[in-house]
Amino acid sequence: MATHGDLRRLLAPERIAVVGGDAAAEAVRQCRRIGFGGEIWPVNPRRTEVAGLECHPDVASLPGVPDAAFVAVPGRATVEVVAELAALGCGGAVCHASGFAEHGGVALQQWLVAAAGTMPLIGPNCIGTLNYLDGVAMWPDQHGGRRVDSGVAVITQSGNIGQNLTMQRRSLPLAQLVTLGNAAVTGVADLVAAMLEDPRITAIGLHLEGIDDAAGLADVALEALRRRVPVVVLKSGSSELGARANLSHTSSLAGPDVLCDALFRRCGMARVHEIGAFVETLKFLHVHGALAGTRFASASCSGGEAALVADLADERGLPLPEFPEVVRRGLRRVLGERVAVANPLDYHTYVWGRRDELTECFTAFLGAGFDTHLLLLDFPREDRCSGESWSVAAEAYVEAHRRTGASACVVSWLPEGMPEAVGDRLLGEGIAAMQGVADCLDAIGAAARIGAAQDAVDRILPVRTAFRVRTVEPAGSDGVVHLLDEWAGKRALAEHGLPVPAGVVTGARDAADAAARLGFPVVVKALGVAHKSDVGGVRVGLTDERQVREAVDGMSGVAERFLVERMVGGAVAELIVGVRRDPLFGTALTVGAGGVLVELVADAVTLLLPASPADVRDALRGLRIWPLLAGFRGPGADVDAVVDAVGAIADYAHGTDDLVELDVNPLLALPEGTAAVDVLIRRRGGNP
Amino acid sequence: MATHGDLRRLLAPERIAVVGGDAAAEAVRQCRRIGFGGEIWPVNPRRTEVAGLECHPDVASLPGVPDAAFVAVPGRATVEVVAELAALGCGGAVCHASGFAEHGGVALQQWLVAAAGTMPLIGPNCIGTLNYLDGVAMWPDQHGGRRVDSGVAVITQSGNIGQNLTMQRRSLPLAQLVTLGNAAVTGVADLVAAMLEDPRITAIGLHLEGIDDAAGLADVALEALRRRVPVVVLKSGSSELGARANLSHTSSLAGPDVLCDALFRRCGMARVHEIGAFVETLKFLHVHGALAGTRFASASCSGGEAALVADLADERGLPLPEFPEVVRRGLRRVLGERVAVANPLDYHTYVWGRRDELTECFTAFLGAGFDTHLLLLDFPREDRCSGESWSVAAEAYVEAHRRTGASACVVSWLPEGMPEAVGDRLLGEGIAAMQGVADCLDAIGAAARIGAAQDAVDRILPVRTAFRVRTVEPAGSDGVVHLLDEWAGKRALAEHGLPVPAGVVTGARDAADAAARLGFPVVVKALGVAHKSDVGGVRVGLTDERQVREAVDGMSGVAERFLVERMVGGAVAELIVGVRRDPLFGTALTVGAGGVLVELVADAVTLLLPASPADVRDALRGLRIWPLLAGFRGPGADVDAVVDAVGAIADYAHGTDDLVELDVNPLLALPEGTAAVDVLIRRRGGNP
Repeated sequence: MATHGDLRRLLAPERIAVVGGDAAAEAVRQCRRIGFGGEIWPVNPRRTEVAGLECHPDVASLPGVPDAAFVAVPGRATVEVVAELAALGCGGAVCHASGFAEHGGVALQQWLVAAAGTMPLIGPNCIGTLNYLDGVAMWPDQHGGRRVDSGVAVITQSGNIGQNLTMQRRSLPLAQLVTLGNAAVTGVADLVAAMLEDPRITAIGLHLEGIDDAAGLADVALEALRRRVPVVVLKSGSSELGARANLSHTSSLAGPDVLCDALFRRCGMARVHEIGAFVETLKFLHVHGALAGTRFASASCSGGEAALVADLADERGLPLPEFPEVVRRGLRRVLGERVAVANPLDYHTYVWGRRDELTECFTAFLGAGFDTHLLLLDFPREDRCSGESWSVAAEAYVEAHRRTGASACVVSWLPEGMPEAVGDRLLGEGIAAMQGVADCLDAIGAAARIGAAQDAVDRILPVRTAFRVRTVEPAGSDGVVHLLDEWAGKRALAEHGLPVPAGVVTGARDAADAAARLGFPVVVKALGVAHKSDVGGVRVGLTDERQVREAVDGMSGVAERFLVERMVGGAVAELIVGVRRDPLFGTALTVGAGGVLVELVADAVTLLLPASPADVRDALRGLRIWPLLAGFRGPGADVDAVVDAVGAIADYAHGTDDLVELDVNPLLALPEGTAAVDVLIRRRGGNP
Repeated sequence: MATHGDLRRLLAPERIAVVGGDAAAEAVRQCRRIGFGGEIWPVNPRRTEVAGLECHPDVASLPGVPDAAFVAVPGRATVEVVAELAALGCGGAVCHASGFAEHGGVALQQWLVAAAGTMPLIGPNCIGTLNYLDGVAMWPDQHGGRRVDSGVAVITQSGNIGQNLTMQRRSLPLAQLVTLGNAAVTGVADLVAAMLEDPRITAIGLHLEGIDDAAGLADVALEALRRRVPVVVLKSGSSELGARANLSHTSSLAGPDVLCDALFRRCGMARVHEIGAFVETLKFLHVHGALAGTRFASASCSGGEAALVADLADERGLPLPEFPEVVRRGLRRVLGERVAVANPLDYHTYVWGRRDELTECFTAFLGAGFDTHLLLLDFPREDRCSGESWSVAAEAYVEAHRRTGASACVVSWLPEGMPEAVGDRLLGEGIAAMQGVADCLDAIGAAARIGAAQDAVDRILPVRTAFRVRTVEPAGSDGVVHLLDEWAGKRALAEHGLPVPAGVVTGARDAADAAARLGFPVVVKALGVAHKSDVGGVRVGLTDERQVREAVDGMSGVAERFLVERMVGGAVAELIVGVRRDPLFGTALTVGAGGVLVELVADAVTLLLPASPADVRDALRGLRIWPLLAGFRGPGADVDAVVDAVGAIADYAHGTDDLVELDVNPLLALPEGTAAVDVLIRRRGGNP
């Protein structure tokens, strides 16, 4: 694997080789268009000149060692060129050709990887890279960006989406764009790490189809939190059909989407689900960075808009707090008694078009001291109307922002309601020009989640996965998965501290005596029987020895050994705790509400292991049944004990290499303590 | 109330009076801008000329009877002018002034209503109206629309949102725009009814803050379904803060949002939550009308986009079915073996820029015969790049559409990725130019829901509400709300056919005998006690006479009468059925999952009464616990019996004028039949 130090030459080269025909020539022209100041060396055995530059017949004839090479020749030739570049000490290659692993060419891709050796390599099957900071376009096609001094880096697995992002008319300053293609050598984590080294990069956007190195991505995400560079993720494949499309597109593998979500949540990466939201969230973060919270204020001259903003904020759980008295006084002074001062603010149109009054109004508004402040403004269409008084409002807001220095946004309802020139002007003033109110509110939520993760970064455990170290096999060396009987499973978990009901294993003859020693009521379960409930192998609520004898007699056809347990009652809630192994993400633990009804509402949160007690507590808080545990009616459960019980299960799973899967269902959450009533453990290997 | 026949003169006038100063003059100019061909008569006692037209000193001096008047004078003067116009036989007035009910001027608004008499009146506190079909701008400001031959009608309570909608650059043909303001006289239902009379109007969009006449709105919505004119609703006030903002904006009242939702769902009005979605859904419906279903196909030249579309469709429950074999063959023939043919289709870039191959590809694609077909296309920014090959793709799609006549859309990810000229061109060809993929998918879902409602319109019951007929008081004439005891409540419901457990009311002495006659196990409940569970007034699972005697003894401190009931076990699910009265919406029935866990997940559906058995069944199907009732594991419940039980409760509620509220909780859904285990009924009046 490349280290990010190596990527700097590739991403910001001074000397570029372009290898190939028309595509290489176009890259030369695109470099020129955005003002590349270094040297460009075309390579093509059949041309003497490419885009006006002298052409070299092969890599060996180059006048020096290039920092980066754009390789746009067919697959097999790409492998040869990459080998020559690597031998020469080139800083890295961007490989445009397709026909590798994404289309059956697995062996060809392996040769390419071997040819690159330790040289960084982007692609194959990618369009290329664009560096708008330094004017580098290793890119064989048109693109819509321009030079910037600072901005966001976007790393995408889709060339088309990358190209479309350069076309955005939304004032988002794009600093770097890397299309990953098959990411055969240089991966997302390497690139993020490299971007973090460049102080001109304000935020990082990832469009991912697969995650092939969860631990690596987690590590750089935590580093991004430490450096306070926000990361936004647009990850496709949440649906089965989407995952299949990804697989055929760039042969991208991803674990189950719920594990991706767990990874993003843990490492403070904000996930979005559409391209517009991706652009808007990046823009917000470029201007404001992460937020300390989600308290915001909204102002527009329309009561209708105020109501819609209130609804959209409520749906997202974003608070619109009341204004402090000083703000209310200031607003009343300029707006008069006809305007009801409230957040969201409808400042009416009495001061519309009057710059001084508007400046006074917005200065008071921005004095609220919330986490951010929105002015709603949709400019009229310029071809048929005049936007003059809209510009007056925007300029008044700029002036108020200069006076207060508050976190400020202007937001249009329809994205096209914000002309690009206005957006550029606002961004230049440190005001986020947001396009689409819902996307803006989602961006506020994302910025606050990232902020919370930045503050907590020292308490976030790194993710350790098996990938690229060892692979979790579906079965042991003998291909057998072994189901531990309930008693063995409970003993194993009890050793790690999980409370289980008092119980004893007996034959049929001793069951009643055992029950009497334990104390009634008891439960009797047949041991060593799959699906024991279905075959009558479980009897609960037995209150005397006669009932125990009858129960055991009834099970004599299905088992010879029986687990007799003290019955536990009085649960506040039934939980399910499950552990699964995933080859990409390692061990994941799911905690959820138990019982058949809640299975229908899928009330569960998944964590990657290791997880801290704080992580477990956060997961419990994320459940819909949390109020039940916390005691919204009645006394509630012993939450500390639940956290400890989940921790015991996680400990066991973490230390048990041959674990395949585990379910504790139900884990009873009691007013004091917990009890694991049933346990199912599958391990690899023929014997427990 | 005006009838819609009256509104035609107001909405499409041939002779307009404009009353007032600068605002009136601007309305004249705006009429001219969009080519009004009729007569305009300014009225102003202090001017001789307005916008180049001869000015009349007062209404009495007008040369004839105007069809419509735009009245832009202060509040009290507005009342006088309206009275004169009404006396003259004017077809209607649009009243611009504010300071009426929205700002404490309730009496002034009452005078205005009285002055209008039977004359239609839009406003007060509204900007005005725009008719782009006939070139009428009773509108004192700039606006962005232009003349159209047909298009959508928008009726909005927000002038600002209305004005912004005229500025959309999204090729939505706007035919009529009415800003309602306070809707003191002419309401939404009147306007919708009038729009339905104009065959040039293809769809109707409502932006509502309040609903003051639920039955009237329901009636016109059903008429719209019959005429197959789709209706889209953007309703604010779903949050408490939003509702408060509405109240201060146009003094709009609305019932609880869940009742608004119930009304929209019942009457096939598609609800959206943002302005962009409003525009896109209207545009889709303008082109395609309602859909028979949601099966759709997607094509783009990007695998990354294909995966995102699949995810967004999956989130919305929209199916992307596999292509028929003939389509697969056709696509393979033009795209070759390198392209994996699937839906969503990634047609790659091999045929990009080649019109004939693209036409062949799209013709095969549009042959799928699904409910609609999307081509994903984001045009590059025109100032820096060439969109030439994008135009080739769009024209190939147009040609394929001409050949097949299939329902077709072109969709851009970023709204601005669809240039307005391209959108206009596509709409002219009967192809919906959609801007934003998520909004487009939501529009497909909305169009299919409307289609299903159109097909079912003859089975949809009209909504009958108390509003404007009588008001449901919070209490009876003596101000007292009476709580029926459980036995009285059960008897009342049983008379309407609700199954209740076998039971008998006894004194303390006879309870045990009564239990023995009923058969054990039994339940004993104290009668006439509020919160009886909390004071030990309920004992369940009593298995012999001794236990019954002990139970009654234990309750002797709280009650003298006891309900002894046969205990019902074996429930498949516990349901809750509640009935509430609302002054705006009449009687509403909520059916949901019972039990504490499901309270936390809010699994409930609300219906307005009357409701048909089919409505009740649909509501049950909408519950998360529906699989439990339907028997996804185990035998399931007697769904017919549940529908009957809910019907019995609805019958009782419908026929009980003094009902305040009612809860049956739980209603046990059994493998055979149902049982209403507990019942709470509150009625007005001192005595049951």
